[in-house]
Amino acid sequence: MTLAPDADTVRLSLDEARSLARRVLSAAGLSPAHVDAVAETMVAGERDGCASHGLYRLLVAADSIAKGVVSVDAAPALDEPAPALVRVDGGGGFAQLAFERGRPLLVEKARRFGIAALALNNVVHFAALWPEVETLARDGLVALAFTPSHAWVAPEGGTKPVFGTNPIAFGWPRPGPHPFVFDFATSATARGEIELRRRAGEPVPADWGASTTVAEDVLAGAMRTFGGHKGSALAAMVELLAGPLIGDLTSQESLDADAGRKGSPLGGELILALDPAGFLGAAAGQHLQRAEALFEAIQAQGARLPSERRYAARAVSEREGVAIPAALHRDILKLLERKD
Amino acid sequence: MTLAPDADTVRLSLDEARSLARRVLSAAGLSPAHVDAVAETMVAGERDGCASHGLYRLLVAADSIAKGVVSVDAAPALDEPAPALVRVDGGGGFAQLAFERGRPLLVEKARRFGIAALALNNVVHFAALWPEVETLARDGLVALAFTPSHAWVAPEGGTKPVFGTNPIAFGWPRPGPHPFVFDFATSATARGEIELRRRAGEPVPADWGASTTVAEDVLAGAMRTFGGHKGSALAAMVELLAGPLIGDLTSQESLDADAGRKGSPLGGELILALDPAGFLGAAAGQHLQRAEALFEAIQAQGARLPSERRYAARAVSEREGVAIPAALHRDILKLLERKD
Repeated sequence: MTLAPDADTVRLSLDEARSLARRVLSAAGLSPAHVDAVAETMVAGERDGCASHGLYRLLVAADSIAKGVVSVDAAPALDEPAPALVRVDGGGGFAQLAFERGRPLLVEKARRFGIAALALNNVVHFAALWPEVETLARDGLVALAFTPSHAWVAPEGGTKPVFGTNPIAFGWPRPGPHPFVFDFATSATARGEIELRRRAGEPVPADWGASTTVAEDVLAGAMRTFGGHKGSALAAMVELLAGPLIGDLTSQESLDADAGRKGSPLGGELILALDPAGFLGAAAGQHLQRAEALFEAIQAQGARLPSERRYAARAVSEREGVAIPAALHRDILKLLERKD
Repeated sequence: MTLAPDADTVRLSLDEARSLARRVLSAAGLSPAHVDAVAETMVAGERDGCASHGLYRLLVAADSIAKGVVSVDAAPALDEPAPALVRVDGGGGFAQLAFERGRPLLVEKARRFGIAALALNNVVHFAALWPEVETLARDGLVALAFTPSHAWVAPEGGTKPVFGTNPIAFGWPRPGPHPFVFDFATSATARGEIELRRRAGEPVPADWGASTTVAEDVLAGAMRTFGGHKGSALAAMVELLAGPLIGDLTSQESLDADAGRKGSPLGGELILALDPAGFLGAAAGQHLQRAEALFEAIQAQGARLPSERRYAARAVSEREGVAIPAALHRDILKLLERKD
């Protein structure tokens, strides 16, 4: 760790960031297997320039642990409810380890059957979905992931929260170093963005809140989905796919289960994986090459691929480490003091 | 058929509409199996109040046939490239018959493996996707469908067309009479809506066109996706899933293959199906019931479910038949005169 030229930030190598994350999560009481899995996604977020899913999440995770929302030593239990389906019961632990536990069998089944699905049940979710679909795309698979959250978002045409921020993530294998990956909330914006406006005493844009531009009221009332009735339909789809379809909670049920503790969402996640060789056999490589022409047509006109910014940030972080706000670093270190 | 009270419309019972559609498609030269499959989706569109996917499409289909874009008597060929995958080569015919050919095996595989996928290859596509996901939902399955079209839509941040209107459809089985179904283009609007503005000499809203509000220029240049970079990411996903992943054309390749004939899009379609009993076994019914609570929470606040309007129109049409513009009816009858 070094003080950055700007003394308001602290610079950490990725190894230092990983080590810090592990120490904090261990001190918070998380079992070693969970510590490793959770730390990895936080380092990945920080590395890729997603500060809101980076080391800041140490505070969120420690808070969920302190509140008893998460089981700190849950051992994920895997089963195969149908030939092309994998299910992992996370036992109330963080989702990351449950995903790691299910991933190898999901990959195996996708390759064997052409398509397969993995349900994570009974997990606590606070991480981005892109690390999961990116990993699967690096295994050569096409992947989709969905998860509900807490009921904070109104359906189009309504004003009362029903949906979570309900992200959809997609990964596509590419011949180059990085897969094509996107991961976005079906809410109009992230909750953190509204929180920033609230702190600054500023109104939010009209399409963020269901019935008001007052940031505080949007947080207490309802956010809107992105994209009008289409985004609202997708938010409903995420609820259904990663809720009732896999026997897990909707965002409203997650909020009810939270019972005012303001912990991270509880419930499930659904991941689909397709093997390009399933439909195409030996011709898969040649058809994936045609996808490259699509990406080139997007980039040649100055438009960005969804994952471009993250990969650019990653390249910088791998060379130079990450810089986090000094205040955040202090808050993280306080978690160690309290527990060591 | 009766002249409606408003003499500008002609009222047809659903049987009369079906009979008319079949006569026109037969006269256009389509083989009997294709006639039945195609007529059914047009009647369904008209019945459900989707005039743009209703009997009007007889003109579109006849035009594609006249231009030689479609194979009128293609026999769809089915194979199983992997245990949970079905593929139907449509042989250059309309997609409807290819879907019918593949559907029973898709349903069987979804029930057997928990999840399955159907690729339609080498088909001509001009119909909505909702009839397909609705049918699968009536079989008790959760279904997703994707198809590219012609390259008419620019990626977010660009101005040149890369994507098609690239619809996404979703179906969810419900205990009541109607499944939860949505089907929307990932373009900001339908091409027909822009065409209407062009005829009226009106500009289009700023978020419809990639670089202009002049309707004619948007049609000749590029439309935008819905929902900014999120809609753009989804449009790319549709290209990839129902293009290279299944060895079929992207929207740009479809437009190139059309070679200026202005026929319907050529290429593929991907349909995914999941069986709720796969993850849940005998508990599926109980979890589907929790989905009903989600729908109730949406409707109780006055917001609409995506499929509500169509089902309401369907109920009316089943009682009273459909009313189509007299001018459209005359244009359709001209197709019979020309060919009989």
